[in-house]
Amino acid sequence: MNDRFLRALAREPVDRTPVWIMRQAGRYLPEYRATRARAGSFVTLCKTPELACEVTLQPLARYPLDAAILFSDILTIPDAMGLGLSVEEGVGPRLAKPVRTRADIEKLGVPDPETDLRYVMDAVRLIRRELHDKAPLIGFAGSPWTLACYMIEGEGSSSFARAKALALDDAATMHKLLDVVARSVAAYLAAQASAGVQALMVFDTWGGLLAPDMFGEFSLRYLAQIAQSLQIHNVAKSIPLILFSKGANAHLEVLADTGCAALGLDWTIALGDARTRVGHRVALQGNLDPAVLHASPDAIRREAKRALDSFGPHPGHVFNLGHGITPDVKPESLGVLIEAVQDLSRRA
Amino acid sequence: MNDRFLRALAREPVDRTPVWIMRQAGRYLPEYRATRARAGSFVTLCKTPELACEVTLQPLARYPLDAAILFSDILTIPDAMGLGLSVEEGVGPRLAKPVRTRADIEKLGVPDPETDLRYVMDAVRLIRRELHDKAPLIGFAGSPWTLACYMIEGEGSSSFARAKALALDDAATMHKLLDVVARSVAAYLAAQASAGVQALMVFDTWGGLLAPDMFGEFSLRYLAQIAQSLQIHNVAKSIPLILFSKGANAHLEVLADTGCAALGLDWTIALGDARTRVGHRVALQGNLDPAVLHASPDAIRREAKRALDSFGPHPGHVFNLGHGITPDVKPESLGVLIEAVQDLSRRA
Repeated sequence: MNDRFLRALAREPVDRTPVWIMRQAGRYLPEYRATRARAGSFVTLCKTPELACEVTLQPLARYPLDAAILFSDILTIPDAMGLGLSVEEGVGPRLAKPVRTRADIEKLGVPDPETDLRYVMDAVRLIRRELHDKAPLIGFAGSPWTLACYMIEGEGSSSFARAKALALDDAATMHKLLDVVARSVAAYLAAQASAGVQALMVFDTWGGLLAPDMFGEFSLRYLAQIAQSLQIHNVAKSIPLILFSKGANAHLEVLADTGCAALGLDWTIALGDARTRVGHRVALQGNLDPAVLHASPDAIRREAKRALDSFGPHPGHVFNLGHGITPDVKPESLGVLIEAVQDLSRRA
Repeated sequence: MNDRFLRALAREPVDRTPVWIMRQAGRYLPEYRATRARAGSFVTLCKTPELACEVTLQPLARYPLDAAILFSDILTIPDAMGLGLSVEEGVGPRLAKPVRTRADIEKLGVPDPETDLRYVMDAVRLIRRELHDKAPLIGFAGSPWTLACYMIEGEGSSSFARAKALALDDAATMHKLLDVVARSVAAYLAAQASAGVQALMVFDTWGGLLAPDMFGEFSLRYLAQIAQSLQIHNVAKSIPLILFSKGANAHLEVLADTGCAALGLDWTIALGDARTRVGHRVALQGNLDPAVLHASPDAIRREAKRALDSFGPHPGHVFNLGHGITPDVKPESLGVLIEAVQDLSRRA
């Protein structure tokens, strides 16, 4: 198997820097849009293992990527808790039954991954079979804070003021919610590992919206709880965990202390500076600005080189964007980037 | 005159921490909505000095604020350059004629503030008269990078990928645009000072979207150009300049070196940490998360205290939110915050 990605996460030497792309199975690909149209809805695409498998594999057929990532959504857990997920084209995800009161939150239980999220586990098993060890498969979940934001608001928000107000006014209730979500995420990730994923990633998309004290109390604490739970259950020994707290570069040192294997980075920090700050505790994944893919091939190559040079000739770098690839990128542009990373990082 | 705000910007001792609120003349106030409805459109409200004066003064009639801020919009400069500003309710600003090519950019000239932006200067003069020295008046402009983003895209964007692609593909053309905008901003701010504003603020709303190298080249450089231009023209001697680069806390030290009097801060950094990093070079303005205003009075008071304690008993703090107040805040909640800041910061 191509194990560059796993070796880089273990901070072992590799022949060239591994690369995969957040949201690589996504709307910028015409073949994805075709499958998505066939599925009828985004949620059906997620919930049908054959279709989820199909779109997971599409970018690997097109590009020489070093990892596949399960096609799914971070809101599968709230959906399995009974909140009712739908995703409207161009509007974003919506939960029909947001949680607003302590009573709402006390009713929530930890979903059983093999029954309540069976479709995800079936997708993982199918993808592993169909991948034929061409590349490792990454499983993922949303962070407790990020999921709690959606569960309270019922939809996306620029400020998640309702979620923050609950945290400020009734921290005990917010912790109750975050704890049940964190236990659900840990169980879900452990089950994905049992089903066959070879690395795990937690997306803390909204952690960076928190003031520093609140980040520690309401986001970081539960990321650490998940990392520790995976260690206790012996998952973390063999399955590396990547934490990605977008917009939270002020907190890299404490994120690196959670026991994760790697940190995902957005593009607002130089890779070399991040490496200096976290030392050799963790590998780093990232971090090209997705907007670079709107520039010319020359600029894409130049920026890829800048990122590789910034990290330097050390082990422990997984190349990626600093956020998901956007639907309006030309597939050829991603091809240019991947080729550049592979050419420029090849060890003599 | 109540000069607490100006004394704090000069890092002189004050009897209590001065406070004003970004977007204090805004949609959360019923009296603002009434004037706005009377104006018919947001742009008419901006362009009619009597109405701009009326809404500028509204929050000062309601709250014991330590500064007024000119009611206007950062896109007055692109509008004066001929790009055609409109603002649709619930959609945001739109420029009818975005600039996309070098030829578009070469056609742009520096607007003459007293003719092309006469309505702003008239508003400043009228507001100063009507304020009766109750509080100092702040004038403002958008940063060159932020204005360039809007001028290229023609509207708001989550990524401003088109603006970034131009910067990456044709830096010379982007610099041509940023330079003409920076000269326009400097002339505009100097004219506002001549017309009577007593402090100036530059809003670099989208600086934090840039990777570190690009921030230095495309945002910081032009903020420094404006600060230096104001010094050369002897404006900065008497009229302090506040720079606010949202999401750019990684760059506080270099922002403090531009020659500005103060830095605005968003809420993702502790005030005490920011103060440690910039030392006594500049005053600091901020930085409560606007979402705190959705919490209970007790939580609002507690978070105000936390911010004041974080800054500590030093001169050089202007209390504000870390971003503009949102339309859904109850006016009473802002009253609670202002009272808390004034009570808790009173020197013995």
